[in-house]
Amino acid sequence: MQFNHSDTICALATPAGQGAIAVIRISGSKAIEIVNSVFKGKDLLSVAPNTIHFGTVNDGETILDEVLVSIFKAPKSYTGENVVEISCHGSPYIKQAMVNLLIEKGCRSAEPGEFTQRAFLNQKMDLSRAEAVADLIAGESESAHRLAVAQMRGDFAGEIQALREQLIKFASLLELELDFSEEDVEFADRKELEELLLTVHKANQKLIESFRVGNVIKEGVPVVIAGKPNAGKSTLLNRLLKEDRAIVSSIEGTTRDAIEDTAVIGGITFRFIDTAGIRKAKDEIEAIGIEKTMAKMKSASIVIYLFDLNSMSPSELKSIYSELSASAEENNVLLILAANKIDLFKGGKPEEKFAGYDDMFFLSALSNEGIEKMEERLVSLIETRRVNSGDVVVSNSRHFDALTKADEAVMNALNALKTGITGDFVAMDIRQALHYLGLISGQVTTDDLLDNIFSNFCIGK
Amino acid sequence: MQFNHSDTICALATPAGQGAIAVIRISGSKAIEIVNSVFKGKDLLSVAPNTIHFGTVNDGETILDEVLVSIFKAPKSYTGENVVEISCHGSPYIKQAMVNLLIEKGCRSAEPGEFTQRAFLNQKMDLSRAEAVADLIAGESESAHRLAVAQMRGDFAGEIQALREQLIKFASLLELELDFSEEDVEFADRKELEELLLTVHKANQKLIESFRVGNVIKEGVPVVIAGKPNAGKSTLLNRLLKEDRAIVSSIEGTTRDAIEDTAVIGGITFRFIDTAGIRKAKDEIEAIGIEKTMAKMKSASIVIYLFDLNSMSPSELKSIYSELSASAEENNVLLILAANKIDLFKGGKPEEKFAGYDDMFFLSALSNEGIEKMEERLVSLIETRRVNSGDVVVSNSRHFDALTKADEAVMNALNALKTGITGDFVAMDIRQALHYLGLISGQVTTDDLLDNIFSNFCIGK
Repeated sequence: MQFNHSDTICALATPAGQGAIAVIRISGSKAIEIVNSVFKGKDLLSVAPNTIHFGTVNDGETILDEVLVSIFKAPKSYTGENVVEISCHGSPYIKQAMVNLLIEKGCRSAEPGEFTQRAFLNQKMDLSRAEAVADLIAGESESAHRLAVAQMRGDFAGEIQALREQLIKFASLLELELDFSEEDVEFADRKELEELLLTVHKANQKLIESFRVGNVIKEGVPVVIAGKPNAGKSTLLNRLLKEDRAIVSSIEGTTRDAIEDTAVIGGITFRFIDTAGIRKAKDEIEAIGIEKTMAKMKSASIVIYLFDLNSMSPSELKSIYSELSASAEENNVLLILAANKIDLFKGGKPEEKFAGYDDMFFLSALSNEGIEKMEERLVSLIETRRVNSGDVVVSNSRHFDALTKADEAVMNALNALKTGITGDFVAMDIRQALHYLGLISGQVTTDDLLDNIFSNFCIGK
Repeated sequence: MQFNHSDTICALATPAGQGAIAVIRISGSKAIEIVNSVFKGKDLLSVAPNTIHFGTVNDGETILDEVLVSIFKAPKSYTGENVVEISCHGSPYIKQAMVNLLIEKGCRSAEPGEFTQRAFLNQKMDLSRAEAVADLIAGESESAHRLAVAQMRGDFAGEIQALREQLIKFASLLELELDFSEEDVEFADRKELEELLLTVHKANQKLIESFRVGNVIKEGVPVVIAGKPNAGKSTLLNRLLKEDRAIVSSIEGTTRDAIEDTAVIGGITFRFIDTAGIRKAKDEIEAIGIEKTMAKMKSASIVIYLFDLNSMSPSELKSIYSELSASAEENNVLLILAANKIDLFKGGKPEEKFAGYDDMFFLSALSNEGIEKMEERLVSLIETRRVNSGDVVVSNSRHFDALTKADEAVMNALNALKTGITGDFVAMDIRQALHYLGLISGQVTTDDLLDNIFSNFCIGK
C-alpha cells in the first residue's frame, strides 16, 4: 500500500483572492530543506518540530515577503511527511511569486487532494476519513457539517472495520476447512456463521437505509413548490431564498439555477425545486399542475402546495388535496398546504374559508407574513431526521454502492449456507463482501479509485 | 500614544470562500485564555510561545473541527499582544461557526485593519510601514510589490526620520535662543541652518518628484488608446486585457469598467483607457477623435494612436501625427502609432505605405499578430521608471501631501532666514515642517487620521 512519493509538493492552501494572510503548504522529504534555501531567519534545518519562525522569503537579493514559517516533521504531520506552512501576506502577486519560487527550488505543484492522498497512503487516515475531509470543506449547513465531522472522527470507519473483522475470522476458518477438505471437517460452525451473516446483513441494511437521510443532509432536503400559475410560487421561492442566509450566500460560485436552489434554514440545507421553472406546454396549464407535482414528488422529501386563497374554492381544494395527499403518502413525502395572498383576502378570517386541514399555512409571499411559521414547520418536519452525535450515517454514494454490493454478497453467502453449498463457494461470497467493505476504508483500492476520489478535492488539501 | 485596547478581537484572516484551510486570528490579553476555553488538546495556558498544537475546537459537546493552533505571546507577536491563530478546514460554515463561538466566549469582531492598528499603537511598526502592509496585499504587479516591500522594510521611514532628526536639532537650538532672548545670543548657526534647510528641501523635492513614478506603479501606468471609430480600439483593448494574465484575473471583485481596465505585462501594471468607451456626440465622429485624445493625454503616460492602415492615407497620418506628437511632447507623454488590420492589407508590405515613423507598430488586433512586439515596447518605455531595490519612492498620496506641506514650511523657514526675521518665526516654520513629516511616520497622529488609514484595510489584517 505504501506508494513511492519521493518528490516534494507545494500549493496555496487558502482560498484565492486578496486577504490579510495566505498559507502556502509544502510536503515531502525535502520540504524543510527547500524552504530553508529561500528563508532568511533562523536555520530551519535545526529547529524543533511544531514551532513557528519569523523571517523573510527571498528570491535572490529581492525580498518577496515577511513571513511566518511553521515546521512539522514526519511522521507527526498532516501528510505524515515533513511539512512546512508559509504564512505570507495575502496578495495574489505574492502567492503566485511564492509558489513559482518554490517550484524553481525543486517543489512540484500539488495535484488536487494530493496532501490528503499522501496522508492516506502514509496511513494517517483511512479512505472514508479522507473523503470526510472533502465533505467537511464543502458542508454548507450545520447538519451536513456534523455528518462530516462524525465521519472524519472515524465512527463510520469503526463500524465497517468491526463488520470486516468478524467476516475475516469466519472466512479464515472456511478456508482452513478447504485445506483439510479430504478429511471432511468443519472448523466453522454453520449455525454461528449463519447468525453472523444475519448480523452483518442487518448492520449493512441499517447503514444502507441511513443513506437516504445522509444524502438528503449532504445534498439538501428536496422541497417541491407546486401550484397553479399565478399562485405565487416564484415569489415564495425568492422569499425562501432571498433572506440573508450568510452561509450560503458567502460561497463563491454558487450558481443560481433557474429551477433549483438551496437555502440553509435552522441549520438544515433545503433544496427548493420550483415547478414553475419547468417549461410548460399551453394545454398543461389547465391541468392545475397536479400531474407535474406528482411526477416531481418521487424525488422530493416535502411538497408545498401553494394556492391563491382568493381564487380557490373550498371544494376545489378538497379534491386537489385528496389527490395530492394520496400520492404523497404513496411516495412517503410530507405535504404542506400554503394559502397565499392573505394580504388581498376580503371577507373575514382566511382560516374560516379552509378549515380542517393539517399542515396548512396562511401567508403572504409578497409581504412576508406567515413565512417564518412555515419555515419553522419545514425544520421541525426534518428535525427528526437530524443526525445525533452518536449516529453512524452514510452520506457518500460511493460508500452506499459498496455497502449495497457487500450486502448482496452476504445474502449470497447466506443462501449458499442454507442450500448446503460447499464451503469454498461460501468463502468466495464472504471474500467478495470483504472486498466491497474494504473499498470503503481503502484497505482495498485501485489507482483509478484513488484518482477519482482525490481529484474532487481542492488543491492545497 | 499608547491607547487602551483592553478587549480581545478576532477575525477571519484568509480570503472568503471555500479552501483547504482557513485561518482565524485572535489578538488581545485574553486571546490564549478564550481559545483555550474551546480547545481540546494541550492546555494552551502552559505552552511555550511560537509553538503549534493539534486538537479540536468544541462548542459544548459538539466538535466543530480538528485544528492547529499557533500561540504567540506579547510583545513578540504581530500586534504586540497575545495572539492565537487557529488553522481550521476552509469551509464557509466552519469559519462562521468558529468566529461566532469565539465572540460568544468573549472576543469582539475586529474592525478592518484593527490588528495592524494595534501593531502601530504598540509601536511594532510606524505608520508608513503599516500603510505599506495594505499596499503589499493590494499590489498586483511585480513593481507595485517591490515598492510596498521597500516601504514595509522601512527605507522610506528611515529617510523621513533622518530629515526629522536634523530639523529637531536646529529647532531645539532656536528655541534655546528664545529662552535667552534678552541676551541676544545665537546658538544656532544661521549659515549652517540655511544649508540644512536646503538639504531638507532637496530631499523633500526628490521624494515629492518620486510620487509621479510611485503613483503610476501603484495605480498602473495610464495608457490611452485613441483612434477613429472602427480603427479596432475595442478589439485591441480586449487583446491587451484578455490574455491569461493570471495575477490580474485571479483577483475577485475586479470590476471590468467599460472604459478602463488594468493588465499586468512584464511585471508592470498598465491601466488601459479606451476612448471608444466615452459617449460621443454625432458630430464629434468627424473630428477623428484627436481632440478627445489630446484631452485624455493630460492624464496619460503613454498614448497609442490606432488606425486602420487600409483606409488611412500617408498624408492624413502625417498631419494627425504632427498634431499628436506636438501635444504629446507638451504633456510629457510617450506616443506610439499602431497600424491595425495588416491581415486585410493588400498590395505589398504595409511598412512601405507608412515609412519614417519611430515607434510605429504593424499589427492585427483580430489575429493577435504584432501585439507582443508592441507590448514589449510598452514595457521597455516604462522600464526606466522601475524601482530599484535601493530607491526610496513615495507611492502614497497621503505621504505626498504631507511632504508637499512640509516642504512649504521649509521654504518659509528659508525665506524667513534670508529676510532676517527673528528666530521664533523660523522656529515656528520648522515646527510646522516637523509636524507634517511626523504625520507620515505616525509620530504625530489624530484619531481621524488613524481611522481613515485603517478603515481601508481588509478585515483580519
